[in-house]
Amino acid sequence: MLNPVKVGILGLGTVGGGTVHVLQKNAEEIARRAGRAIIVTHACAKELNKTHPYSTENMVLTDQLNEVVSNPEIDIVIELLGGTTIAREMTLQAIKNGKHIVTANKALIANHGNEIFAAAQEKGVMVAFEAAVGGGIPIIKAVREGLAANKIQWIAGIINGTSNFILTEMRDKGSKFADVLAEAQRLGYAEKDPTFDIEGVDAAHKLTILASLAFGIPLQFDKVYMEGITKITPEDVQYSEELGYKIKHLGITRRTDKGIELRVHPTFIPNKRLLANVEGVMNAVLVQADALGPSLYYGAGAGALPTGSAIIADLVDVTRTLTTDPGNRVPHLAFQSNALADLPILPIDEIETSYYLRMSALDKLGVMAQVTNILMENAISIEAIIQKEPNSDTNQVQVVMLTHKVVEKQVNKAIQAIEQLDSITGQVTRIRVEMLKG
Amino acid sequence: MLNPVKVGILGLGTVGGGTVHVLQKNAEEIARRAGRAIIVTHACAKELNKTHPYSTENMVLTDQLNEVVSNPEIDIVIELLGGTTIAREMTLQAIKNGKHIVTANKALIANHGNEIFAAAQEKGVMVAFEAAVGGGIPIIKAVREGLAANKIQWIAGIINGTSNFILTEMRDKGSKFADVLAEAQRLGYAEKDPTFDIEGVDAAHKLTILASLAFGIPLQFDKVYMEGITKITPEDVQYSEELGYKIKHLGITRRTDKGIELRVHPTFIPNKRLLANVEGVMNAVLVQADALGPSLYYGAGAGALPTGSAIIADLVDVTRTLTTDPGNRVPHLAFQSNALADLPILPIDEIETSYYLRMSALDKLGVMAQVTNILMENAISIEAIIQKEPNSDTNQVQVVMLTHKVVEKQVNKAIQAIEQLDSITGQVTRIRVEMLKG
Repeated sequence: MLNPVKVGILGLGTVGGGTVHVLQKNAEEIARRAGRAIIVTHACAKELNKTHPYSTENMVLTDQLNEVVSNPEIDIVIELLGGTTIAREMTLQAIKNGKHIVTANKALIANHGNEIFAAAQEKGVMVAFEAAVGGGIPIIKAVREGLAANKIQWIAGIINGTSNFILTEMRDKGSKFADVLAEAQRLGYAEKDPTFDIEGVDAAHKLTILASLAFGIPLQFDKVYMEGITKITPEDVQYSEELGYKIKHLGITRRTDKGIELRVHPTFIPNKRLLANVEGVMNAVLVQADALGPSLYYGAGAGALPTGSAIIADLVDVTRTLTTDPGNRVPHLAFQSNALADLPILPIDEIETSYYLRMSALDKLGVMAQVTNILMENAISIEAIIQKEPNSDTNQVQVVMLTHKVVEKQVNKAIQAIEQLDSITGQVTRIRVEMLKG
Repeated sequence: MLNPVKVGILGLGTVGGGTVHVLQKNAEEIARRAGRAIIVTHACAKELNKTHPYSTENMVLTDQLNEVVSNPEIDIVIELLGGTTIAREMTLQAIKNGKHIVTANKALIANHGNEIFAAAQEKGVMVAFEAAVGGGIPIIKAVREGLAANKIQWIAGIINGTSNFILTEMRDKGSKFADVLAEAQRLGYAEKDPTFDIEGVDAAHKLTILASLAFGIPLQFDKVYMEGITKITPEDVQYSEELGYKIKHLGITRRTDKGIELRVHPTFIPNKRLLANVEGVMNAVLVQADALGPSLYYGAGAGALPTGSAIIADLVDVTRTLTTDPGNRVPHLAFQSNALADLPILPIDEIETSYYLRMSALDKLGVMAQVTNILMENAISIEAIIQKEPNSDTNQVQVVMLTHKVVEKQVNKAIQAIEQLDSITGQVTRIRVEMLKG
């Protein structure tokens, strides 16, 4: 395998730490995909979180930004400084020094992206910013590459997790904005100074970026209309429910005959929409495009590991572009063809899940005992049972059960035994149950 | 701008026609993104649909596959033949001739992908197949590139629109499988021979591909456990509702300590999950990954234009890789930097949407007439009104209204006038309403 790609990181806080953590934890998987190892060789941080879950053993730690930005060994600089002043300077300096840039800084891109991209293009380096919108959701890749065939008509997104968390709690508990904000601050979902989140500034940064990707217009943060969630009252929440709507804080950009709409504000949306059911700190972006129609992208919009996921996707993208011949930039099956794994495929008998079982039984004493005994003998425990009134013509009852998790061959054995019972007529219907929990 | 990229297309049926249609309709937008025009110069088709909405003026039409596959002018071949015999031969032949391949053929990739990818890699050409899974949803790009940081734990997807349509109708109407199938055939959502859809074969093709992308394993279609929806009864649907679940036909692949699960079958899933609310012919894929957590991708899984959208995304990908210097493979803002548009951004006053208005009024005769008069004067029509019992302490009533669509400055003018009324106390709350319909 080729030499590792060397990465310098500016800022080792929550997101920087998460990035290093995932890079180390999934090093093998990532190298199998990228065709090269990706390692953080230098990190600039004021102070380290003492309990960090990653190793700094082979990493040069410094408090001098310049030691990273001007280091000739480094291929890619991850900018996680926040803010727009030093971040802008350091990004431009790193570009000047021929470094590729990966950043999660939406304020930087929304305010100075036009300047930064021009500098990068002149220098022939890449600037990647997947983590700037929707946290770990690959929404920038989806809009910029996946929807390249389409004339995009509009985008509506829940792109600020703090606001969505507060609105979700206000609805679930009937609480007031101020009380939920205090709770969100206690839980770490809102910052001590929550202005950027609750006044819509953060969402406006992200919307600025989405609108440019969708419509091919320069970044124009200063033209976004911004309205936060601070004035939403429990009464409004209650009326929205009565009317069949949910209140969500959305970023909306739309192409109209007169121009582009760019607006961030609380919005009533019909209950039935998937977006209306995006709860808590989760993010989701709905894109309406002329060929594809509606498509939606949902996932964690913030947090150390999800944001790390997007940053590393960018690192892999840059690495793939730097490394491989163009014809094989992305391996067909995601992993390099010489790095495919020979994992066994499990026969269906060996899978483990829960089951829905439905059977027709003669309505006589002891049937239920017989059935539950068979289940017990096969170590199958029952989560729920429905037994309806017997059908008066046939004297049969439908018995329905949900089981706890069990290996499939046990269930099949039990079903065979149940079907042998005199009191059971016909076959047992068996449908698998999946909770699909994260 | 550079010379156009020349594309030959094998098959001009629904999907082929949709692809050509979108390529022509959005030609300017696509060229601004790709940096080059992409044109179909040759098409092989048995016969053309007479009412096709695209032009064949500058296109060589032939019924000889070889005229496309062996044509030295052509850069990229789109394979839309269906089946796996001729499709495999023609794909391998085109690769041998140095053509890049774009295909929507899941059966081909699931059954012969290993062979095709090896041939392509040897020849240094690209094989792209975004349209093979989830129709227009960029799910292959998401898994293969967007989630490259992650150890993927499992994927569960609604990846056959026909099955999802049938299950949705069975639930909504309490109908039997056979009746809904007949209806789906009438509507064109199910084929005359629906076996591949209703027995899970199509979903198994797609799951095979997703599992390889997720876990880096060779394509192993023969090891997928397949179960269709033909045995689901209205009783099962009804019991699922009573238990708080929906029945969905899922493709599931999971990494376990013992091996990889690969299975396609009807599944009970809890009502609350977003996947449970994916209705009709729509597709959605839920991916659980260690860094990002759960993420979901939703959109049209079939159809001429959505599938065309995915095929063209692949064409743009190939074009970008063929054309640009690696450092600028994908333009920062999706469109080439010299092709950004100077569209005006609309002031918020000029946007048009619906509004929720809430006000406190003194409970006296004529208030409602005054308010509705003001609305009428400003050409605002009302969709719904809620007026509650007056508060006995304050003698005030809350009045809530939903308006139809109107330009925002009209609403603001009306609100100003309403706030001047003696019978209205305090300010009018105004929240925008969006239906978010496709």
